[in-house]
Amino acid sequence: RYYVHMLGRLYDNQDCSAARALELVGERWSLLILRDAMFRNFTRFSQFQKSLGLATNILAKRLEGFVAAGLMERRQSGISGEQAEYLLTQKGLELKPVLIALTEWGDKWVQPGPVVFQNESDGEPVELLLRRAGDDIEVSIADVVARRR
Amino acid sequence: RYYVHMLGRLYDNQDCSAARALELVGERWSLLILRDAMFRNFTRFSQFQKSLGLATNILAKRLEGFVAAGLMERRQSGISGEQAEYLLTQKGLELKPVLIALTEWGDKWVQPGPVVFQNESDGEPVELLLRRAGDDIEVSIADVVARRR
Repeated sequence: RYYVHMLGRLYDNQDCSAARALELVGERWSLLILRDAMFRNFTRFSQFQKSLGLATNILAKRLEGFVAAGLMERRQSGISGEQAEYLLTQKGLELKPVLIALTEWGDKWVQPGPVVFQNESDGEPVELLLRRAGDDIEVSIADVVARRR
Repeated sequence: RYYVHMLGRLYDNQDCSAARALELVGERWSLLILRDAMFRNFTRFSQFQKSLGLATNILAKRLEGFVAAGLMERRQSGISGEQAEYLLTQKGLELKPVLIALTEWGDKWVQPGPVVFQNESDGEPVELLLRRAGDDIEVSIADVVARRR
């Protein structure tokens, strides 16, 4: 498919949804750009650039890649339409659990970081839980296995 | 710290646990190597190499990096100790939710993949849930925000 070719089939021999996801978001900086869009509500090139300090050509490539992959939409704004905004789509927004999982792991295993995740409406902390589908029984990480469908 | 320097402080200016996590597991192939260790129980260089088809020098660098970062332990095995096994530590094992989150997203937004996650003891499907800490109320992805501690 077009958008996959845009970003390269790095893991083409891998029949795996995690590999497919990483082809779209696994490049350097990709997940941190998405983090800034998800959790800091950044939309402009200059905001991402200032936050991340990465080379402008790399940032431009990532943002255009996200648009091509359907993770972001590019919208012209400003009085004469001269400014672009990059807005997460639902597809992009739904990568939040990936960032939350990385953050929870980094908080525990590297060092506690500066942010917590909250439910916006009531300010209660939010966490990711592995559970059996259909009930609320938590499953231990060691007990989760992968089986072919 | 030593292990961080080993792998480079790519995102050194980012005060963020997701960035710290990505410094350890964000290189190309890293998460797929860990996937094979977590969900296929691979332990040997040759198993990873055959599964992923990546260059042997890159694979060696990744595995040694995981050992340096405490994600894996290297153990000599074989009759005369000539073979090495790479075994996930608890630190490495606890990256499972990152792989599961990527897989769930890829299944939904790219194409359904070949595996499902199950609770080993009873074969019931397992899923990642965002919930309010302390109760079992599911939180919508759109309602999860990040706040400074």
